[in-house]
Parts: sequence; structure tokens; C-alpha cells
Amino acid sequence: MRAAHGAGREVFGYNRSVEGVEAAKVDDFDATTDLHQALSRAADSGALIVLAVPMPALPLMLRHVREIAPDNPLTDVTSVKGAVHTEVVAAGLLDRFVGGHPMTGTAQSGWAAGDSRLFVNTPWVISVDDHVDAGVWAAVMHLALDCGAFVVPARSDEHDTAAATISHLPHLLAEALAATAGEVPLAFALAAGSFRDGTRVAATAPDLVRAMCEANSGQLVPIFDQALRLLIDARNQLARRQPVSELVESGHAARVRYDSFGRTEIVTTVVGAEGWRDELAAAGRAGGVIRSALPTLGSRG
Amino acid sequence: MRAAHGAGREVFGYNRSVEGVEAAKVDDFDATTDLHQALSRAADSGALIVLAVPMPALPLMLRHVREIAPDNPLTDVTSVKGAVHTEVVAAGLLDRFVGGHPMTGTAQSGWAAGDSRLFVNTPWVISVDDHVDAGVWAAVMHLALDCGAFVVPARSDEHDTAAATISHLPHLLAEALAATAGEVPLAFALAAGSFRDGTRVAATAPDLVRAMCEANSGQLVPIFDQALRLLIDARNQLARRQPVSELVESGHAARVRYDSFGRTEIVTTVVGAEGWRDELAAAGRAGGVIRSALPTLGSRG
Repeated sequence: MRAAHGAGREVFGYNRSVEGVEAAKVDDFDATTDLHQALSRAADSGALIVLAVPMPALPLMLRHVREIAPDNPLTDVTSVKGAVHTEVVAAGLLDRFVGGHPMTGTAQSGWAAGDSRLFVNTPWVISVDDHVDAGVWAAVMHLALDCGAFVVPARSDEHDTAAATISHLPHLLAEALAATAGEVPLAFALAAGSFRDGTRVAATAPDLVRAMCEANSGQLVPIFDQALRLLIDARNQLARRQPVSELVESGHAARVRYDSFGRTEIVTTVVGAEGWRDELAAAGRAGGVIRSALPTLGSRG
Repeated sequence: MRAAHGAGREVFGYNRSVEGVEAAKVDDFDATTDLHQALSRAADSGALIVLAVPMPALPLMLRHVREIAPDNPLTDVTSVKGAVHTEVVAAGLLDRFVGGHPMTGTAQSGWAAGDSRLFVNTPWVISVDDHVDAGVWAAVMHLALDCGAFVVPARSDEHDTAAATISHLPHLLAEALAATAGEVPLAFALAAGSFRDGTRVAATAPDLVRAMCEANSGQLVPIFDQALRLLIDARNQLARRQPVSELVESGHAARVRYDSFGRTEIVTTVVGAEGWRDELAAAGRAGGVIRSALPTLGSRG
């Protein structure tokens, strides 16, 4: 709300927390604890609805949207796209839905933790799944750009596999490293950089780590298996006094490639033109991002 | 040499590299490429000999020490203590040997990379194995303290297990994470903090990573197995849609304990008094370090 308002947009919000809504009102924001009223107003004005609720609250919220504002463009800001997609299908709202994942945040929550600059120069993933409508997609793109983010277009399944790889797996590796060291006398006494960096994210609240890993288990397990295969091979090579060159060299090569991975700007795609979804998915995979609004052919493209 | 010289010690050195020795001489250091001369001089003066050669060069170097200066106090600065211990036993030099591991360094090598402040306020592990002589131990302690380091007393086997846990294992986990992500489209495009930190040490030169892991495989494999057990359990829980609380909570708890792990100063132990080795090993395990020289009862204590 703060970021969209800061960009000069008309924005109104619902929250079930009386304290949150009162705090927002004190700051001159247009907020209510009356969900029916907020959704009716959205239906009347054709507003873009942004769902920013935890996964467990999503099904009920989607049922209300379905009842009151079924034709509004709809997006979300949840970190696991596949699970959200399933709920949106179950609610019969897929036609007007485009998933989103702004990859930024803070450890705090509540109205006071908000910051209109939170999204500035951070990636905001917007799903380019086969079903997505060009008009809704463009509406979400404009919102993300207005908030100061750059857009990474991605298919939901690829997003979830990538998130498993670059976020959920590293959390579990960090937990295992910390837990293993916790049992070794002298380990903490000698620990330095490689241990500190390798366990940093083990300091994350356990509930958050569990929530993201468990909600994405379908994509996480195959990635986990790939990493475990590499590790078990290396373990067996060490036990047989053989070199561990394979793991060490492929890991080093990948990290070097990551260090030189650059973002390019996507400028030629027309949203809604033939093949636009595949074109954006391919560009996103290659490091492409959208920094200024792409042209749009129109809705239902 | 620079650090000991900076502390006002008489120091002379051998290196097989003519360039290295010439560069040291230009800086007014007492260096030679004549190993026989350097060791004879050490034998005559009873100097503490510090072996700072890579593992493969160690057996030959020890043979020369055995021939020319078998009664000199002897230490080393190699990262895997068990492997060095084995070579020292094979050379028949155990009586006057106390292993050491200054836990600092630079990615550069050669004379020009030297820095007299390299050891300032860094841990210098000194072995308190059952055989060690109190007089030699005290001599190594004085050298470390003169160089500005603090001393962590540790048994060689415990040092190697701790090094496997806090250095070798994190390197292999980082390699596996980087290599896995290298195969996932979109992973680098979405990668942020947890991936960057979790793979940082995968940028280390592959030869260095291999050398330290392979030289310590005996201690590394059991630690590796412990981490793999935790990871495989979590993988199976995810595949069965069960919570991964066990791993996540024990990892978090261990990291929190690490964050609050404080170093205390060891002040009461008398080197050479009854039980001094066990006392120092226990103190080191608990985070104890030596910042000013402990009193010494004398040699053969």
C-alpha cells in the first residue's frame, strides 16, 4: 500500500487486524476491516486485487473474491507459486489471475514494518504460465514497476524449482552444517569464515524455514536429491581415498559462472503478441529483467 | 620470519626458491637456499625449527632434520595435524615435536605476500597430544604469542575433526550447492543472499579444497556421514509431506549457541604440571585461549 500510494496510485486495503487498520488510517491510508466492503468497492472500480496473506489464509480469501469480485484482475505476493496456483484453480479464478513474487522483505511484520522503498531495485517475479492474460499481466507489471522493482518473468514451476535451489536447499544445508558442528567439541572454538557464512541462514526463525521448505516439497525433493547424489559420491570417493575432483571442479565452475552472471534488460517483447509468454520465460531464464513497461497488445492476447 | 623478526627474535630461514631467498635478503632477512647450512646452524644454536612446507615436501624435509638437527625443538604450521603426526613418527622425531596450526593466511604466496601482522589476533592451534614435551610446547607458545596470535590448545585428532566440521565440510556443501544450481535454469537469475553466502567458499581454488579434504579424509568421512544422515532424514520427511522440524530446530539451536559462544582466557594452567595436557585440551574445547604466556615447570614435565 505504501509503495503503490507513493507512486501516486489510488489504493485501498483490507486487513483483519483492527490495530493494523487503525495504524494505517492514522497514516492517512484508506483501510478497512470489512472484507465485504473492500471487495465490493474493488468489484465496482475494477481494481487490481493483490493478495498478501499467508498460505493457510488463502483458500478462504479466494472464496470471498470469487463471490464478490470474480472478474477483477488478481495477483499475489506469496513465495511458492505452485501451491497458490492450485488454490486459485480450486477457487475457479484462474482466468484473471497472474502470480507474483516480490523477492524482498523484512523480518518484521505489521503496519509499522512497512516501507514505501521496500521494493526499490529488487526483483519482482511475475508468472508467465500458459493461461495468463496479457491485460492482467501488464497490470501487475505496471504495479511492480511503479513500486520501483524490476520484473523477472518466469513460469511458476521454474520459479519454484529455482527457489528450491537458491533458497530452500541452502537453508537446509546450513541447518545440517550447524547441527553437525553443534555436536563436535572444539568446532565452535575454531570456527571462522567458511562456517559463519555456511550457517548464516540457520539463524532464520525455524517456522519460516519449515513453512517455505514444506510448502515447496514437490520441487524441493528432486533438487535435494541432485545435491545429495553429488555429496554421497564425494563422500564415497573420500572413503576410498580417491580424489573429489568431480564435485570440487563442477562446484567451482558453477560459482565462477554465477559471479559473472549479468542481468540484461528485456525491451523487444510485446505483451500479448504471439508467443509472448514463452519469449518472456526464455528471457527471464537468461537473466533478462524488465525495467520499463513493455508495450501491450491488449487483453486476452 | 617477518612476524618473529618484528617481535625482536633472531630468525633465519631456508627456502628452495632462489627468487624467494633473494627477495628476503633484499629486505634484510637472513635467508639461504642451502638447507644443510640452515639446519647445521639450527643444531648449533638449539633454535626452534618451524616447518612451513606443503604436505608432499614434508617427508624429505623431516629426513634432513633427523640427520642434521634431531634434538632441536620442532613445530609446523600445516592445517591437518594427524597426517603431519604420522610423518613425524615415521621420521623418528616425535620426542621434540609439537604440532601447530596458525589459522590465518592469504590467497597469495611467495615472499612478497608476507606480512608481519598476519598473525595478529588470530587463533594459533598448538597440539597437546599425550607425547608433547612441556619445554617444546612452551617454546611454540612463546613464538605464537610473539607473533601476536592467541593460542588455542587442542589435541591433534580433535583439531582435525573440528577442521573437518567447520572448514572441509562447508567447502563440500558449498560446492554441491553451486553445482546443483548450475544445472537449474533461472537459479542464477533469482539467486540472492542465502545462495551467495552458501556458495562463497566454492570460489576457492579447486586444488586447495581437494588438498585439505583429501588429506583429512579419515576425520572428514564420519563428520560427512553425520551431516548426510540429517539431510537424508529431512529429504525423506519432505517426500512424505512430514514436517522437517528436527533438522531445522537443531540447526537453529546450534547456530544460536555459536553466536553466543565466547572465548575465555586460560590463566591458571602451569605447563608441565601434572595433567597439564588434558587440562589445556579441556579448556580449549570450552573456548579457552592463551593470550599471555603461561608459566612453565620445565622440560619433560
